[in-house]
Amino acid sequence: MIFDITNMANFVNNDELKVAQRKAIEAMQSLVEDYENDGDMLGWMSIAADIRPLIDNIERCASHMRRDCDAIVICGIGGSYLGAFAVISALKGYFDYDKHEILFAGNNLSQDYLLDMCDHLEGRKYGVVCISKSGTTLETAIAFRVLRNKMEEDLGLEWAKEHIVCVTDLTKGALHDIAVLNGYQMFEVPDNIGGRFSVLSAVGLLPIAIAGFDIRQLIAGAFDFYRPHRGVEQCGEILDYASMRYLMSQKGKKVENFVSFEPKLRGFSEWWKQLFGESEGKDGKGLFPTSATYTTDLHSLGQYVQQGDRILFETILSVENSNRELEVPRTQDNLDKLNKYSWYTIGYMNSAAEKGTVMAHVAGDVPTIRIVIPKINEYHLGQLIYFFEIACAVSCKMTGVNPFNQPGVEDYKANIRKLLK
Amino acid sequence: MIFDITNMANFVNNDELKVAQRKAIEAMQSLVEDYENDGDMLGWMSIAADIRPLIDNIERCASHMRRDCDAIVICGIGGSYLGAFAVISALKGYFDYDKHEILFAGNNLSQDYLLDMCDHLEGRKYGVVCISKSGTTLETAIAFRVLRNKMEEDLGLEWAKEHIVCVTDLTKGALHDIAVLNGYQMFEVPDNIGGRFSVLSAVGLLPIAIAGFDIRQLIAGAFDFYRPHRGVEQCGEILDYASMRYLMSQKGKKVENFVSFEPKLRGFSEWWKQLFGESEGKDGKGLFPTSATYTTDLHSLGQYVQQGDRILFETILSVENSNRELEVPRTQDNLDKLNKYSWYTIGYMNSAAEKGTVMAHVAGDVPTIRIVIPKINEYHLGQLIYFFEIACAVSCKMTGVNPFNQPGVEDYKANIRKLLK
Repeated sequence: MIFDITNMANFVNNDELKVAQRKAIEAMQSLVEDYENDGDMLGWMSIAADIRPLIDNIERCASHMRRDCDAIVICGIGGSYLGAFAVISALKGYFDYDKHEILFAGNNLSQDYLLDMCDHLEGRKYGVVCISKSGTTLETAIAFRVLRNKMEEDLGLEWAKEHIVCVTDLTKGALHDIAVLNGYQMFEVPDNIGGRFSVLSAVGLLPIAIAGFDIRQLIAGAFDFYRPHRGVEQCGEILDYASMRYLMSQKGKKVENFVSFEPKLRGFSEWWKQLFGESEGKDGKGLFPTSATYTTDLHSLGQYVQQGDRILFETILSVENSNRELEVPRTQDNLDKLNKYSWYTIGYMNSAAEKGTVMAHVAGDVPTIRIVIPKINEYHLGQLIYFFEIACAVSCKMTGVNPFNQPGVEDYKANIRKLLK
Repeated sequence: MIFDITNMANFVNNDELKVAQRKAIEAMQSLVEDYENDGDMLGWMSIAADIRPLIDNIERCASHMRRDCDAIVICGIGGSYLGAFAVISALKGYFDYDKHEILFAGNNLSQDYLLDMCDHLEGRKYGVVCISKSGTTLETAIAFRVLRNKMEEDLGLEWAKEHIVCVTDLTKGALHDIAVLNGYQMFEVPDNIGGRFSVLSAVGLLPIAIAGFDIRQLIAGAFDFYRPHRGVEQCGEILDYASMRYLMSQKGKKVENFVSFEPKLRGFSEWWKQLFGESEGKDGKGLFPTSATYTTDLHSLGQYVQQGDRILFETILSVENSNRELEVPRTQDNLDKLNKYSWYTIGYMNSAAEKGTVMAHVAGDVPTIRIVIPKINEYHLGQLIYFFEIACAVSCKMTGVNPFNQPGVEDYKANIRKLLK
């Protein structure tokens, strides 16, 4: 992974950066101290090591589901699905929806969505993974009721018992109780890891393994990249990202636009948005996290980014190599005048587009950070997960907000309960 | 359609609103005058009437493609695909990807995307609609080369001639010349309609008709809602939306979050973002257009919206009725305690979630506008298209920017050309 801030030179001077870096080091030290003391809500910091004894079990369950099912529904909302969604959508092919189809439910209250999914599952052998700490989150609990009912009717009680898996609290709660009563297999949502930091626990790993991806490599990428007893001085790139974000906020930037040039990273952007938005957006503070896929959105948001209100900076997640290569084909008539590019791969054109975009945006007063990975694979996604999780916790410590609560999410829920009485 | 600003009362007083409304009326009058004088780039204002003589032709072409093809690739970027994408994704089922599959290409430079699509088309009978005024837009032209080559190899020259359709300039340009040379059927991208205002021309209508939806109803919805000779006084709701946006900007709001509670409106949000972002985001001005799907994103961005930096206001596109209804099922054990809701439909729960969200966000200092349609169908989407297009043009006139150019989109393109030399 390369962390590239060469394009920030016009916007941040060395003295400012040094002050911010000192602040970031203090924040990081305080995070590690918290971990070493009570470690409350900091289980994610060592999860890449702690999860290892469970991997065999997770993989066994995944093999069983893959052997028997041609579709698996992942039922969860927020942190209970976004990590798995991020990794699975980044790794799977663009049009793979035939065998071992992974579907996501329980993350909205659209009845058309749920009914269409039920139709789509008709006549198929499907499994359900329900992910919820409590089991009472409205969206997930409703979808789980509908899907359980349907499965028991379609495929029988015995099938349901063998092909419903619950990821939940192992000692209490509605989903725990449902699993015990019905004999469903269970995996743990650890007590000291919040939803948005949970992708490297069973919450993320089970669906990712079911989708057929290598969770050992994901964990290895994370583990090699960070562990709590690594000195703060080893975390330079993480601290630089947190420092730059802090300085952008100090200089009046309001929005961080998370950009990639590969459409399959859209899910990863959604994960990133929850991580930063929910951790940092409180006490009237925080950068608004938004995302774009270029070059697609250069033809929609590009005009605003280039010349609109100067409230944005960009963080580009750049990928050096595609899975496969394709050259611009030659044509005889050359009416569109592209033959001059016919010795280039389209990947090379995409890289040129990225360079050209950075130049244009920097010239247009949009500070731009680049985070470069060689390839989209499990290992590098594992690195990125830890990179952003730690940077997020450090960022929050720097602005003085608690990264691990989400008091504002309760307000609308309380209103719903009142309205439904 | 209902335009509901009752929740703006805490944020905007009557006197302010009256001043803004007067400004909006002037902007609207000036727009209509422009239309009546040279009408440059204002062809969209009367397109719902002007397009009628072409509907038969468009429908004939669509029937031919639907009869012969089981997949159709729509090749275009920005305004050349977002309108069709918005309408098609809003109208189709959530998991309909079997017959008459509609795919979108030419809107990015990902070689994995294009190669995966080629694999996905293998052994199928497919058609291609290429949409580009000039035919030289890089993303679209490259994908079109790849797809044409492949189709000629897979299905033969004769098939390609019959199943490639070009929507382009009818008198000049690369795509026009390619179509003439190869005998492809052509439809017009009108000269006086910019890409982001073009959904009701053949640019949007042909793909929408190919996807099997009723373009006559779409046009009827637009036509009934607005026509240039309707007096300004008939456009109260449009002017109120423009006025509210203007006041939000005056009061320091930076971001307009376009929200829906139905996931299939995500594509419509993307269309909306281009419309406003590209029209308004210039001269250092403009509200940053972003979007969210609730309740999904309440579990990711909700915390920020409720308690983060107070730079946001929200425009909710609300849908009163789903296509189908589904009640919360009862369970014997009731461990998740949802039996108390078992006489509600999930749609009713979603409405309660919307009400609860509005209450919470307004209390959290987020001004909220609601635009309500009875149902997602062609007719109401037609209304919404005109509602937003006119409101957008009026908004731009109020802040003094030209709604119809996009000078900032050229910068990155020029850089790419330099880098590839």
